Amino acid sequence: MAVGEGKLPDTIHPIPGFRLGTTQAHIKKPDRKDLIVMELCPEATTAAVFTQNRFRAAPVVIGETHLQQEPARYWVVNTGYANAGTGDEGFRRALEVCDILATMADVPLQSVIPFSTGVIGELFEVEPFESGLPQCLMVLTEDGWLDAAEGIMTTDTRPKIASREIKVGEQSFVITGMSKGAGMICPNMATMLGFVATDLGIEQGLLQQALQQATDASFNCITVDGDTSTNDACILAATGRSELPVITEENELYQTFCQALSEIMLELAHGIIKDGEGVTKFVAITVEEAASESDAKQIAYTVAHSPLVKTALFASDPNWGRILAAVGRAPVESLDVERVSLWLDDVKTLENGGLAASYREEEGDRVMQQDHIQIRIALGAGDHTATVWTSDFSYDYVRINADYRT
Amino acid sequence: MAVGEGKLPDTIHPIPGFRLGTTQAHIKKPDRKDLIVMELCPEATTAAVFTQNRFRAAPVVIGETHLQQEPARYWVVNTGYANAGTGDEGFRRALEVCDILATMADVPLQSVIPFSTGVIGELFEVEPFESGLPQCLMVLTEDGWLDAAEGIMTTDTRPKIASREIKVGEQSFVITGMSKGAGMICPNMATMLGFVATDLGIEQGLLQQALQQATDASFNCITVDGDTSTNDACILAATGRSELPVITEENELYQTFCQALSEIMLELAHGIIKDGEGVTKFVAITVEEAASESDAKQIAYTVAHSPLVKTALFASDPNWGRILAAVGRAPVESLDVERVSLWLDDVKTLENGGLAASYREEEGDRVMQQDHIQIRIALGAGDHTATVWTSDFSYDYVRINADYRT
Repeated sequence: MAVGEGKLPDTIHPIPGFRLGTTQAHIKKPDRKDLIVMELCPEATTAAVFTQNRFRAAPVVIGETHLQQEPARYWVVNTGYANAGTGDEGFRRALEVCDILATMADVPLQSVIPFSTGVIGELFEVEPFESGLPQCLMVLTEDGWLDAAEGIMTTDTRPKIASREIKVGEQSFVITGMSKGAGMICPNMATMLGFVATDLGIEQGLLQQALQQATDASFNCITVDGDTSTNDACILAATGRSELPVITEENELYQTFCQALSEIMLELAHGIIKDGEGVTKFVAITVEEAASESDAKQIAYTVAHSPLVKTALFASDPNWGRILAAVGRAPVESLDVERVSLWLDDVKTLENGGLAASYREEEGDRVMQQDHIQIRIALGAGDHTATVWTSDFSYDYVRINADYRT
Repeated sequence: MAVGEGKLPDTIHPIPGFRLGTTQAHIKKPDRKDLIVMELCPEATTAAVFTQNRFRAAPVVIGETHLQQEPARYWVVNTGYANAGTGDEGFRRALEVCDILATMADVPLQSVIPFSTGVIGELFEVEPFESGLPQCLMVLTEDGWLDAAEGIMTTDTRPKIASREIKVGEQSFVITGMSKGAGMICPNMATMLGFVATDLGIEQGLLQQALQQATDASFNCITVDGDTSTNDACILAATGRSELPVITEENELYQTFCQALSEIMLELAHGIIKDGEGVTKFVAITVEEAASESDAKQIAYTVAHSPLVKTALFASDPNWGRILAAVGRAPVESLDVERVSLWLDDVKTLENGGLAASYREEEGDRVMQQDHIQIRIALGAGDHTATVWTSDFSYDYVRINADYRT
């Protein structure tokens, strides 16, 4: 199950200086693409963000360390095993994979960044990588995005790619990204991954800043079940092959890039929610008129995580009492319930903490039948706003998450 | 579905000075007990705790105010309507119900404490109370606990009563209580209610302190889905009819009473979890060796609320990776994952942040087949401990919560 068609972009813009190679390495299961290598040109800069979970998978720990030591030249991704909760041996095997690739490509070990997604707590064998990595290197191509986007899928039902060409005067730059989703669809697989590249040249500090800001407004604003994985990562390369000047300060081009990056990442993040197996609704929760952005986010997340709200969404039931109860229990000191108003899309449901005089249940019903729903909550306490995106909670969520290992 | 048999106590001890009367008032549906009056003798003291949700139902607001103004003489409970989110008119009607009862019983309006449980956002009619309240008063009896415990049920599958007689030298006191459950079983009904009485005489301040402590260790340590209702309340009467001396200081008798009260309330709280429709597992989550009790509780709740942990429990799957991931994302600064150990009952699964050398999956499987499961997490950070009790997350949870209003 999924919301919408999940259409791929009409054009997937290749990124000069960034090549992708995908193969079937039989890491866990036969007959599926499960190993991906991405190669960055030597002059590329890289920025990355990793999971906030204290239990961090071996590849996350290694990747973060390597990025501090050498410019990244290769990103390597496997599906099948998360390599989390695997102790020293898991760490050793992840390093061994990096070493095999580094030796083949004749680059320093620390220029290889590993990513894993799959079952937690099981060790992978290194042998499939020994035969698979040369195959990936042989098929490296700037047009490899679709194969790679399919390769990183676990229980995703479709590849997720976003791509833009941005005109800047007579010239242009391109930016392309792909993601795989976790949450509802693959909790055991346990990972949200994002890989993005642009042909702009951008100094590393500014690239990291742009990625952090775009992540906060995209991947960090989606939630399916509130469970943060041990492997989440998003990584961004800037190859510098565009004819536009290298960005070394927060100039107009930098702002243009940040805007495009945010759009790409929001599209990839929304794609993850919409592709959740079991997901039948794509829901935006906006909290307005909050005393702070933190208050707005707290309330939005409390509503987004409420199992009672999520099951009502699945049932297409305009059960605003559950939304109200979730708002009321959010950990926000300044909440004055007498000032709270609530809309389901354009239908005002609650005003000043009570049922809106104009509300008719059939209008609430109409909105709830849609597969895209906006819940808007105004607090009357200030001028801060936040939006989070989430999904409903269906029979299939329980089925998928209860049956996965059986 | 429910865990265990939910056996009633062999003896339900009546509380001298505390009478209960229950009737079918046709408040929402015909042919069900839906209106309960409890009468306290004039010398009784009362303590109460109410929901922390900022959106508070009309009866909660009225009850709390009345308790500050007059000694409580009557508690009146209706099922069918929560009278929450009903604005000024809901408030007016709740007061009217109190007024009808106060007039009939010839007591001040403020000595009547109202409780409501049922659908949020719909107004009840006052007329059924006009005919029902005299019927309740006519059948008042100290032996009315079972009828009342059935009357306060909404989608509960069985009445929940706990009762003890405590010997103190040659004498004794009795304590009896009943609860109704919310969470999984009746989110729309949206209420956890507890009513407890003892024949001890206890000064009001001490009674309130005892209730608060017992609540913190019982009702406040259970969670099904993290959704706090707008109507939660627990109220406790001490009638003073026992021959034991009135408690006016924290003496030995007070400690004995507090112990008995805690046991009664824990039994009632556990009864709510076990009776959740859709519940197939009763799960205790204990966090040990924490730097503070707050840290221990935060981690226990994060695990208890994780949909991924709850669906694994439903599947009887020893998926310790999900528990580990939940521990890792808990908002606790001092967590050192290298020191974390985990047991499923007596089976050590994780030690020092990695898979325990002695762990065998078949032993994890064996524990997970049980309907009572203990998850024990040791942090190695200090000497504080906390336990919360919760349930699994089943198909039926989604069915019940999605279908309820349809």
